[in-house]
Amino acid sequence: MTSRLFHFQAGDQGLWKIREVRNGVGAGLPHAPRLNVSEAPPGTPGTWSLRGIRSHERYTTTPEHDQLAARQEGLGRADSTCAALIPIRKSEAWWQLSQDRRRAIFEEQSHHTSIGLRYLPAIARRLYHCRDLGPEEPFDFLTWFEFRPDHEEAFDLLLNELRASPEWRYVVREVDIRLERPLPVDNPQIPNP
Amino acid sequence: MTSRLFHFQAGDQGLWKIREVRNGVGAGLPHAPRLNVSEAPPGTPGTWSLRGIRSHERYTTTPEHDQLAARQEGLGRADSTCAALIPIRKSEAWWQLSQDRRRAIFEEQSHHTSIGLRYLPAIARRLYHCRDLGPEEPFDFLTWFEFRPDHEEAFDLLLNELRASPEWRYVVREVDIRLERPLPVDNPQIPNP
Repeated sequence: MTSRLFHFQAGDQGLWKIREVRNGVGAGLPHAPRLNVSEAPPGTPGTWSLRGIRSHERYTTTPEHDQLAARQEGLGRADSTCAALIPIRKSEAWWQLSQDRRRAIFEEQSHHTSIGLRYLPAIARRLYHCRDLGPEEPFDFLTWFEFRPDHEEAFDLLLNELRASPEWRYVVREVDIRLERPLPVDNPQIPNP
Repeated sequence: MTSRLFHFQAGDQGLWKIREVRNGVGAGLPHAPRLNVSEAPPGTPGTWSLRGIRSHERYTTTPEHDQLAARQEGLGRADSTCAALIPIRKSEAWWQLSQDRRRAIFEEQSHHTSIGLRYLPAIARRLYHCRDLGPEEPFDFLTWFEFRPDHEEAFDLLLNELRASPEWRYVVREVDIRLERPLPVDNPQIPNP
């Protein structure tokens, strides 16, 4: 079985340079020089540390899944030297909704999947879940995106579309952390979690 | 915020007497005299220990939710001196299905909610999730049921119906642990997690 739990620690170490921490909704996160992403729990404390688990699909239908699978590319593409880590927490009102209402807001009203689909394969995306790791997690999800530097403008458009959607009325905390790494000249092995 | 994470430890202590451990599908669990259910992590090791987190609804539609809410009663009813803890693990094939396929198997094909509804309010039920607590959990869910001794036959019928359903083809591990506690004569406070 592949690894499911990943740790994201900000501090002095890590492949990714933290270019900017854009504190959006709710409590922010402090800046740090680097971000380390690993399957192993951090051995030393950093500026902050988040964790998330890969899990099954929550809203996607089979036709949507198949469309996404046909167009998306994996993480770790050599020229995708830009990334964004966007931790998100939704309100209790969201979690109290039944599955059909959450799905309707997510897709029929907010077009979450169909918006994301338009930016594939340029913007590679992965979702990590936090909410059910325990009762004290600060975020519900960690969203992770990878793209080429010349696609950052498209990525910002994607975020604008999602943030203007009805789904985002339920977002009570969001931090937008922009990252970059060097092109893999000396070290062609990019971790691909 | 109410507590979400609960620990179920078998050993020498606990309100509930373990009457029988019926090992069903996959690896079983050993017998022990008592079961302790608590929000605090166990301080000492027991015969075995499981944990689960209360979470949002996964498949229920709003009309189904409203029907359940109108008929169900909470845990801790004084005369519900029987309980069952049934930990369940589903296959990777289940978790790889998209949401619409899992929902269709769960309800349209297996009638999970509508079967449960017919046994309300006699059989009180609560679901704890394990799968996203971490990558090493032995079960995906802990299901918990409480009922009067004269409703145990009905409870067995409920289980027979569910176990005969298409959903159960995806169950790769299941243990059925039957429990009892005394009527609260001396101590009318029954824990109601």
